[in-house]
Amino acid sequence: MSDLLIKNARPMAGEPSDILIRDGRIAAIGVGLAAEGVPTEEAGGRIAIPGLVDAHTHLDKSLLGYPWYVNEVGPRLIDKIDNERKVKRDYGLDAHVQSMRQSLQSVGCGTTLIRTHVDIDTDQGLVALEGVMETRRQLAGVVEIEIVAFPQSGLMRRPGTAELLDRAMALGADLVGGLDPCGMDRDPKGHLDTIFALAEKYGKGIDIHLHEGGELGAFSMEMIFERIRARGMQGKVAVSHAFCLGLPDWNVSQALIDTCAELDVPILTTAPPSREVPSLKRLRAAGVRFGAGVDGFRDTWGPYGNGDMLERAMLLGMKNNLRRDDELLMALDVCTTGGAAVMDRADHTLAVGGRGDVVIVEGESVGEAIVTHQPRKLVVAAGNIVARDGKSLRERP
Amino acid sequence: MSDLLIKNARPMAGEPSDILIRDGRIAAIGVGLAAEGVPTEEAGGRIAIPGLVDAHTHLDKSLLGYPWYVNEVGPRLIDKIDNERKVKRDYGLDAHVQSMRQSLQSVGCGTTLIRTHVDIDTDQGLVALEGVMETRRQLAGVVEIEIVAFPQSGLMRRPGTAELLDRAMALGADLVGGLDPCGMDRDPKGHLDTIFALAEKYGKGIDIHLHEGGELGAFSMEMIFERIRARGMQGKVAVSHAFCLGLPDWNVSQALIDTCAELDVPILTTAPPSREVPSLKRLRAAGVRFGAGVDGFRDTWGPYGNGDMLERAMLLGMKNNLRRDDELLMALDVCTTGGAAVMDRADHTLAVGGRGDVVIVEGESVGEAIVTHQPRKLVVAAGNIVARDGKSLRERP
Repeated sequence: MSDLLIKNARPMAGEPSDILIRDGRIAAIGVGLAAEGVPTEEAGGRIAIPGLVDAHTHLDKSLLGYPWYVNEVGPRLIDKIDNERKVKRDYGLDAHVQSMRQSLQSVGCGTTLIRTHVDIDTDQGLVALEGVMETRRQLAGVVEIEIVAFPQSGLMRRPGTAELLDRAMALGADLVGGLDPCGMDRDPKGHLDTIFALAEKYGKGIDIHLHEGGELGAFSMEMIFERIRARGMQGKVAVSHAFCLGLPDWNVSQALIDTCAELDVPILTTAPPSREVPSLKRLRAAGVRFGAGVDGFRDTWGPYGNGDMLERAMLLGMKNNLRRDDELLMALDVCTTGGAAVMDRADHTLAVGGRGDVVIVEGESVGEAIVTHQPRKLVVAAGNIVARDGKSLRERP
Repeated sequence: MSDLLIKNARPMAGEPSDILIRDGRIAAIGVGLAAEGVPTEEAGGRIAIPGLVDAHTHLDKSLLGYPWYVNEVGPRLIDKIDNERKVKRDYGLDAHVQSMRQSLQSVGCGTTLIRTHVDIDTDQGLVALEGVMETRRQLAGVVEIEIVAFPQSGLMRRPGTAELLDRAMALGADLVGGLDPCGMDRDPKGHLDTIFALAEKYGKGIDIHLHEGGELGAFSMEMIFERIRARGMQGKVAVSHAFCLGLPDWNVSQALIDTCAELDVPILTTAPPSREVPSLKRLRAAGVRFGAGVDGFRDTWGPYGNGDMLERAMLLGMKNNLRRDDELLMALDVCTTGGAAVMDRADHTLAVGGRGDVVIVEGESVGEAIVTHQPRKLVVAAGNIVARDGKSLRERP
């Protein structure tokens, strides 16, 4: 929580202004601001945007720092899941080290707030959770990290996992995770009842991975809706991926989207080019909270990605066929304040009173900043300078 | 057509080798090659790949070199087309200058072969064609450029366009273009009969833009097939985009794909994340020639893109959900030899006897080279060094 005066920045590519941060909050935005004794940074007329928000990732999975992983994994989901557990053992992967590496890479890209899903399974127990929690402690003041206890290998199909999730919540995970109650766990009632009960027990929210497409995904969404209604958990249950919201049958998908709005179910996307996805414009029109994330990257699941949420705004734009500059602003909004809103942080805005998270980016316009996503000039988290020229100031392990 | 010895490169990430180019052709690949008097370049153990091939772009459209274009264009296709003609007039856009800028940017990215569609319309006549032909002359030996005479603003709906296309072919365009015979021109029979007759008159091929989706696209494809059969133009007619080949109804799309294979109809894709697209694996399995391109970029149509075909290989991989390293090799193949094969250039290979187009890229593996698409270390076209460290040696105007 520091003081900082950023001179000559263009908030959202507007008129050149100074941004004064005091005690980690934006105290003033204006022309010719001065503040005695406050460290000053010159933005050189570059664009200022809010801190980027990676609202869906897996800090414990990346193989950053290792040689290139040659992917020869089989085609089924279960091949990828089983392979990952094996590679973790073979590599002796340390979730703390890997999450430090990924977090600091993301900080270098301008991310100041992360929601991460952390694997909880009967092979490794709570080790990954403990590693990521240690990263969160060490990076306090650099990047904020919200942790979802995630049963990646299944819940009902692997006895003992529910008990581990319970312990994960007791240890300090922020949300209960879930995964494809039909497609993966083959017991949607058992899966959903378990995670909803855990969330209620600890007074926490849920963020469930739902890759199930089409009518199957719609069925799982309805089962989620039923439990939100029955337990009064409006606003507490987010759904990640939610490919079924991209169902071409407008009647079916619109009914799901409208219910997300009615029950305040936030949706998180990673905008994968290969899948049907929730439409940015439809979700915003319906008033659904909507964030985005980089998902896992450079891991056993796939080779793509680098942690850059400004590039993700571009991919989100390409996926949603956004071409106009006002549409590109929407894509950036999803990747900043949108994701923060999913995490109930209304103060994540580039405005007086907002949290002092500011990223200085290159470009003539916000559109150009997104499309070219050049290295970030400066990254500020709660008034602290945490990265320059695309690199976090803190060294990666 | 020059001689060059590239020392210590890893062809397709294989064992370190030297690559000897004589008279613009690969004369030898091996360990410890020497050639007196031949200029030598040290690749430092980096990966060598064939020249990248941009098999579908629009060199006359980019606004490279201009301030950021603020896109406020309406949602319909015709809005975008009419807007573009207006902007060209307002800016006084010079197709020669713009095509020089884009071509040299692409050369910096490792592209050594381009197929470009050039707008022919009753507003500007053949000016754009003449400009791009001048670029082709000036860049001989740097990048090869194949030109399609493209009726962007419609053919049947704008009388006088067919005559202009005729003159374009007489002037030296390599192929006849076309555009959405139903959706855009509202007269599929008239449109297709006109372009097929022109192609036959000049003994040239066709490359037709087909954005029409679903059953409409399938109908246009069938009309194209009928004319190929009737005129014996097997192997001479390519279809760009061909979104209808991504139709979810397997029976319909497979019948189209099989007919593409039977009649040797090459398909060109730009792998747009927002559309259904022809599947890389399905087309390859059927034996259809398949190339890729960056499409127009940084123009009045949209903000995305930068001319980089290695990044396009990544987007193609993401669009087709390719995650394994052997699958990433397929994506690169489409972006190199695949596109060249569409242009009937069987010699575009990194092998003895192949054309001396070599790109030296950064990465531990081909997968990493694609995913990170760092600036190209060296670009060689027919034995000539044309770019270093991501920049063409020739200055952009």
